[in-house]
Amino acid sequence: MAGNETKERKILVAVDEGEVSSYALSWCLKNIVAENSKDTLILLYSKHPPTLYPATDGTEIIASMEKYGNEVAELVMEKAKRLCNEVHDVKVETRVECGDPRDVICQMVEKLDVDMVVMGSHGYGMIKRAFLGSVSNHCAHNVKCPVLIVKRPKSAAPNK
Amino acid sequence: MAGNETKERKILVAVDEGEVSSYALSWCLKNIVAENSKDTLILLYSKHPPTLYPATDGTEIIASMEKYGNEVAELVMEKAKRLCNEVHDVKVETRVECGDPRDVICQMVEKLDVDMVVMGSHGYGMIKRAFLGSVSNHCAHNVKCPVLIVKRPKSAAPNK
Repeated sequence: MAGNETKERKILVAVDEGEVSSYALSWCLKNIVAENSKDTLILLYSKHPPTLYPATDGTEIIASMEKYGNEVAELVMEKAKRLCNEVHDVKVETRVECGDPRDVICQMVEKLDVDMVVMGSHGYGMIKRAFLGSVSNHCAHNVKCPVLIVKRPKSAAPNK
Repeated sequence: MAGNETKERKILVAVDEGEVSSYALSWCLKNIVAENSKDTLILLYSKHPPTLYPATDGTEIIASMEKYGNEVAELVMEKAKRLCNEVHDVKVETRVECGDPRDVICQMVEKLDVDMVVMGSHGYGMIKRAFLGSVSNHCAHNVKCPVLIVKRPKSAAPNK
């Protein structure tokens, strides 16, 4: 990585519960982040916004859902940080934000002045993609910095 | 780039006549390719397939169009190779193929067993994208290796 010895890059990695995002993070650590670089990895997790329930005990349900959401976020971040430490000593920051991942990623890229985004591609088929939209598509078109989309090969050795 | 000292990666960079692809190549050279790595950059240019004209002097027109196409391909490759040499000493291979860039890129990734694809994003608006399709979208969904999409920022310093 030419010139990286002196350059401090901010690399935002979108993480979630799935294996695809773990693979993307792992690939990034082995192929993009230099051993002695000053890169900072920003691990970003997007929580679902709280849903409003019309039931009379809605408050309790919301509180319980929020607690569950926070626990999942913590677990995802712990796993991601462990993965970072396993590969090499890289500076890691974590951020948990609430909202649609497409909006959250685009907003954070702007706000944190990120140099590169890394994300997994879930490899949806054409129909599912048309209905669900694609986070990677959206980000590739809407963020201003380069976007690396990592698809986990079906038969891949996890450490490639 | 952890472990790159021993790993030989093949990085395919899609090049064309535009500044967006030059910027993507330049960004890749400065951010992805290590100074002393064994990476090979494969510069891939997709030529338009020859169009068939119904005119009586069709043969001449086709020959002249083909000649022009070959000259453009040569110019693009020369410019891209010069860019590579300006940054640092990296092993470069060039390939000129005939066809729709979407198909050509996907086919070459398979054929050459590429580790990563780098391409520029032209930043079309929503309507133009819907009609023209997007090379980067297509490749991000269809190739099996990671795809880096580099959009040239409007106000970017070319050497960032």
